[in-house]
Amino acid sequence: MANITKKVSWSSRADELGAAGEGTPLLNGSEQSRAFRELSEGGNIFQIGRLSTVDLEEEVTSDEDSVKGRPKEIPHNEKLLSLKYESLDYDNIENQLFLEEERRMSHMSFRCLEISRWVICGLIGILTGLIACCIDIIVEKLAGFKYQVVKENIEKFTEVGGLSVSLLLWAVLNSAIVMLGALMVSFIEPVAAGSGIPQIKCYLNGVKVPRVVRLKTLMVKVFGVICSVVGGLAVGKEGPMIHSGSVVAAGVSQGRSTSLKKDFKIFEYFRRDTEKRDFVSAGAAAGVSAAFGAPVGGVLFSLEEGASFWNQMLTWRIFFASMISTFTLNFFLSIYHNNPGDLSNPGLINFGRFENDSVAYYLYEIPLFIAMGAIGKNLLCVYILTVYVHRPYLQVMEAMLVAAVTATVSFTMIYFSTDCQPLDPEHSEEYPLQLFCADGEYNSMATAFFNTPERSVRSLFHNQPGTYNPLTLGLFTLTYFFLACWTYGLAVSAGVFIPSLLIGAAWGRLCGILLATTTDNGSIWADPGKYALIGAAAQLGGIVRMTLSLTVIMVEATGNVTYGLPIMLVLMTAKIVGDYFVEGLYDVHIKLQSVPFLHWEAPATSHWLTAREVMSSPVTCLSRIEKVGTIVDILSNTSTNHNGFPVVVQPAKLCGLILRSQLIVLLKHKVFVELARSRLTQRKLLLKDFRDAYPRFPPIQSIHVSQDERECMMDLTEFMNATPYTVPQDTSLPRVFKLFRALGLRHLVVVDDENRVIGLVTRKDLARYHMGKHGLEELHLAQT
Amino acid sequence: MANITKKVSWSSRADELGAAGEGTPLLNGSEQSRAFRELSEGGNIFQIGRLSTVDLEEEVTSDEDSVKGRPKEIPHNEKLLSLKYESLDYDNIENQLFLEEERRMSHMSFRCLEISRWVICGLIGILTGLIACCIDIIVEKLAGFKYQVVKENIEKFTEVGGLSVSLLLWAVLNSAIVMLGALMVSFIEPVAAGSGIPQIKCYLNGVKVPRVVRLKTLMVKVFGVICSVVGGLAVGKEGPMIHSGSVVAAGVSQGRSTSLKKDFKIFEYFRRDTEKRDFVSAGAAAGVSAAFGAPVGGVLFSLEEGASFWNQMLTWRIFFASMISTFTLNFFLSIYHNNPGDLSNPGLINFGRFENDSVAYYLYEIPLFIAMGAIGKNLLCVYILTVYVHRPYLQVMEAMLVAAVTATVSFTMIYFSTDCQPLDPEHSEEYPLQLFCADGEYNSMATAFFNTPERSVRSLFHNQPGTYNPLTLGLFTLTYFFLACWTYGLAVSAGVFIPSLLIGAAWGRLCGILLATTTDNGSIWADPGKYALIGAAAQLGGIVRMTLSLTVIMVEATGNVTYGLPIMLVLMTAKIVGDYFVEGLYDVHIKLQSVPFLHWEAPATSHWLTAREVMSSPVTCLSRIEKVGTIVDILSNTSTNHNGFPVVVQPAKLCGLILRSQLIVLLKHKVFVELARSRLTQRKLLLKDFRDAYPRFPPIQSIHVSQDERECMMDLTEFMNATPYTVPQDTSLPRVFKLFRALGLRHLVVVDDENRVIGLVTRKDLARYHMGKHGLEELHLAQT
Repeated sequence: MANITKKVSWSSRADELGAAGEGTPLLNGSEQSRAFRELSEGGNIFQIGRLSTVDLEEEVTSDEDSVKGRPKEIPHNEKLLSLKYESLDYDNIENQLFLEEERRMSHMSFRCLEISRWVICGLIGILTGLIACCIDIIVEKLAGFKYQVVKENIEKFTEVGGLSVSLLLWAVLNSAIVMLGALMVSFIEPVAAGSGIPQIKCYLNGVKVPRVVRLKTLMVKVFGVICSVVGGLAVGKEGPMIHSGSVVAAGVSQGRSTSLKKDFKIFEYFRRDTEKRDFVSAGAAAGVSAAFGAPVGGVLFSLEEGASFWNQMLTWRIFFASMISTFTLNFFLSIYHNNPGDLSNPGLINFGRFENDSVAYYLYEIPLFIAMGAIGKNLLCVYILTVYVHRPYLQVMEAMLVAAVTATVSFTMIYFSTDCQPLDPEHSEEYPLQLFCADGEYNSMATAFFNTPERSVRSLFHNQPGTYNPLTLGLFTLTYFFLACWTYGLAVSAGVFIPSLLIGAAWGRLCGILLATTTDNGSIWADPGKYALIGAAAQLGGIVRMTLSLTVIMVEATGNVTYGLPIMLVLMTAKIVGDYFVEGLYDVHIKLQSVPFLHWEAPATSHWLTAREVMSSPVTCLSRIEKVGTIVDILSNTSTNHNGFPVVVQPAKLCGLILRSQLIVLLKHKVFVELARSRLTQRKLLLKDFRDAYPRFPPIQSIHVSQDERECMMDLTEFMNATPYTVPQDTSLPRVFKLFRALGLRHLVVVDDENRVIGLVTRKDLARYHMGKHGLEELHLAQT
Repeated sequence: MANITKKVSWSSRADELGAAGEGTPLLNGSEQSRAFRELSEGGNIFQIGRLSTVDLEEEVTSDEDSVKGRPKEIPHNEKLLSLKYESLDYDNIENQLFLEEERRMSHMSFRCLEISRWVICGLIGILTGLIACCIDIIVEKLAGFKYQVVKENIEKFTEVGGLSVSLLLWAVLNSAIVMLGALMVSFIEPVAAGSGIPQIKCYLNGVKVPRVVRLKTLMVKVFGVICSVVGGLAVGKEGPMIHSGSVVAAGVSQGRSTSLKKDFKIFEYFRRDTEKRDFVSAGAAAGVSAAFGAPVGGVLFSLEEGASFWNQMLTWRIFFASMISTFTLNFFLSIYHNNPGDLSNPGLINFGRFENDSVAYYLYEIPLFIAMGAIGKNLLCVYILTVYVHRPYLQVMEAMLVAAVTATVSFTMIYFSTDCQPLDPEHSEEYPLQLFCADGEYNSMATAFFNTPERSVRSLFHNQPGTYNPLTLGLFTLTYFFLACWTYGLAVSAGVFIPSLLIGAAWGRLCGILLATTTDNGSIWADPGKYALIGAAAQLGGIVRMTLSLTVIMVEATGNVTYGLPIMLVLMTAKIVGDYFVEGLYDVHIKLQSVPFLHWEAPATSHWLTAREVMSSPVTCLSRIEKVGTIVDILSNTSTNHNGFPVVVQPAKLCGLILRSQLIVLLKHKVFVELARSRLTQRKLLLKDFRDAYPRFPPIQSIHVSQDERECMMDLTEFMNATPYTVPQDTSLPRVFKLFRALGLRHLVVVDDENRVIGLVTRKDLARYHMGKHGLEELHLAQT
């Protein structure tokens, strides 16, 4: 069990560094799922899971143990819920300071704020569009250059023999480029791996994923995605745009960059979770919009993944950001393509125009489409089984290996393909490879493999019937699927949209061709491109499991609403059939990382649970005027898991709620009242002080409090949220859940019928319950 | 001031009939706004409004006064808030009965419920689609017949002279048809007047608009809309589809029809406000979807107008209903058009295909589009100034007059038009009127006037450049606008979408033509159809003020996403510019009817208000075991405005909340404990009893309680909601508002720090505050 030991040592190191809840949860997503992989390779997960079942009291011990260096055997699997993730507070902290500020503000100031919100959304749109534009142009240039070099090389050696040199060239080029990206991701910012969509989902849900919206992450992400795509991996550049847009939004809306230590002193009002979340939604929407040229789809994506409470003004701002983003991308790409001002061609991926006449569909095709939808999801499972490696340098090696294998497989497929097609001067291929075909013909397999995936998708959708033969498509689907699965586990920045679309389009087109051959009346099934589109939708829907937003995205990307209905049907089928077997890719991801993710509703059969059973108890409470020493002790105590403390007046009557982060700021600024109670000594603290500290509050260990100061008192009245939401102890879980989820709460105080605090409900307490195969199941809470 | 007297007499009659809150608020929308008209014609509104300012205590007196027959001078205007509207309860009443039922239900039962929800949504979609289909076919047949008759007549008399006979024929035909519709609406179901969209908005917002989702309303609506459209009024059949869909949904989901006295004993679980609201959302979406062939637009419409809390599963069901609805319509229309199975032509209104090549747009056109957006809204104001008449028979007369005038104006316009166009065999007109044109030519004005509005819109979008001359368009815009405004105030079932689109398309096309003539390079402005589309969007956006949903609806109706961006820009401009001057049509409507409509957020500057200032106080509380006599007295007392009563244990500690409707059911079933306290005499009441009584609970007057029974006790423990949401009295208004709105509450109890009831916040208390021109304003509450 060497794997476990390794993990444990790293985990205890983490504990020494961090203590509970200091804004730096100790595990990030990719490390976690790696950890899980280690375990699942090394032993029987279930047994380990059982052995290490801990409840809250046991945790305290195990936590202390691990500080002393003793191993702590808590593995990662989907039956656990990590306690290390902090939550975000999407409810305003209405303390006296905040209310005073709001009351001072005139109608005009609110209008100015509103205008600055629009300005920020505009900026988010512009920057996201520019980033998309840069990525697109750089990828196109570099990939073009690469394919040109390889093509010339192949052409040279096709005549003289020795094509293995070409293969070597191709493989080495790919590996080298991918290496750069993988190095950045593995060594500089591991959170930039993958598409970033699960992380953004978590963020919008209210879970703080460390470092996910930082500038460094954005840099690594952009660089990484360029390398992955140019390096010929089976990946797309669309998914990462959503993450990029979110980072841009988080940065712009705060008016400063902590990484660059630059504070523009603007937008200070927006330095809190609630406002930041709204902008991040807009950023994600702008990202989708830039990626697919789908502004409405972007808005729906944000809503589907993020929103809890629908607000019309917010939706419009999100819509505005989306619109600006696609507009910016469109505008600059039109200049780049020497057709300035032509705005009818938006998005990174463009499905090309589906003209109406050629692609009308009939009623009898609907069942076929639905059947295709049902196929889509089955292919997901394999994605999940991808094997991860865990050390940074091994990750880089693996990425290089995959790049080389991709090149080799592609080359082999092209080499052995005998599918020659005549060169069509109208539908000219970008890099037609003649290889062993006759003059005026090109190798059809190469259209699919020797191309960026975006172009391959387009050619599958639009090439004339007969361009591909079924064998080519079948082989392509299989190999590309294998490659995509392997690639998915790599530590590179890359999206899963395009590979899914490509695989789907390939088998969809295959279906179309087979249908045309099996029926006599070939004319009605004439256009395989139609089936390619449906296949692509089915595959993508089966993997990401979005319906409404994905329908709109697909419709916007095809530029034609005729296919709205079949795409909807297909996506819905894919979703229903898929959910029967396994959750969507993003959800599986989130589950594997033990994130306390709150779904839309409490499990249906949870009415027999009440707040009393759900809540954590006993709760550490503070008095309204509390001794500094007590506060420091409470904050330093690692067994205090919560980041919020009810404030009470004797006897235990709730009068407010204060956050750990607020206490830290108070301690840092030494807002103490001396025992002599001369109120003058209490320094006046402003909201600005809290905003300056947001969001990276220092850990309690870094704050020195002298022995004299420990004897002082602290008056929390001004700083606590005096009107926290409460529920009676008999409230049923669905009711608690609804309140918590709809308002985006972080702490919900449970009180008895005399308003005395008896417990605290947090995200973890609610996320614990989920609907398993055999009814309601309870996840175990774990420290890591 | 005869008008006022009339109104007052009617109002006091209403008071005698109803008492407060018996499920039949006394005013419905159209009556109210009529009342307002009377007053605004009869005197100085503002002064009357001032004089009659009442607060809660005064109300009691004024209420009693009116019962005694003394006049009550409370007029209707937008500075008042009616107390007569009941609210709906979008939060589950979690009493013991409910919880026991939920706990008894297995995982399987919940799954069955979920499946029946899907089934219901499917049914809603199918029925809505069928209704749309019927309306469409009947309108086409009848209108075709009418135009054919008139056309033949005109052709006959063009040669022999005496066209006045044709005019008479046309006018009489129109009047007769419109009369039928107006008779139905005025005398049978006045709530079926207009499009019904404001009423559905109110319903989804949580305001009970009487009779709005009844079967009778649907019948009248469908019949009325057919008559209005066939009668040649400047109206559309699209708006009413939304109302129709909602009624279908409300009916189907309850599994019974109270009007037909038929109970299918199915879907009983869904007999409560929360579930019904969800289905009504789906119905509204299905209506939009059928009307415009825009399933995604339908979903967004429901969300934009109705949703507070976004729930993914619900959204998908709504989407499903939308999809089925457009599919059904599509399928049956394809059969009707002898092209069965061709599904690529959905929706009642079809904008026709905009082909890509002809309609690409360029960057420099964007400012033009935006300018057009800014024009759109200005035209709204006039709509509002439409004069209403108030007696049913006068309404019918007015409707007939308008129908006759419409025919006359159209005829005059056509008669004096000299705009002859050659007959194009490809783009053949449906009813080409030759009139005084040369052979092989037709009268261009007649394309616009002598046609159903849907066809006119389509021809404005798609006819070749040069089909219309600018003068024709200008005159058409003016006259049609005048007609549309007048028509809008009529008591007929009709929508405002199509007239708006038509007016917008006309002036949009005019803009396009003028642009083409003013610039030398005519080719780039070559297609006026493009400008017609933008004009239509601007006009419609200016009137209804939707952005996201309307964009999607327009895009789906055009079948081409190329115009997504300009349409968005135009709608956003129209919205921003428009909001600066006046609210949207629906909002103005709602305001004029003094509906306590809750917007998305509390007014920005309302932080200085707290629950203590906002709440109604003192509150009538009940004891957990209460004397029947006391309950009857409380319910009979008309000064008790609330429909919910906090239940307390001594001393005033909150322990639950019970609704008036629940108490009524308890009284009706005589669920009494005799003073001897033999618990056995308390009849066991089931949830079913409450569901059977839903939603038309009898008034307290209809329940006879004997003197003996008055001495009995009633144990409310089982029936009250034991865990109502509460807020402390210092909670700021925005916080109260957010809780109330996000959870769709009806009553929110305000408690002090010992959990004693000190007040109750209801919808009216929150809707009272709104942002006026000079900051926060408070509306006056009024009984009517």
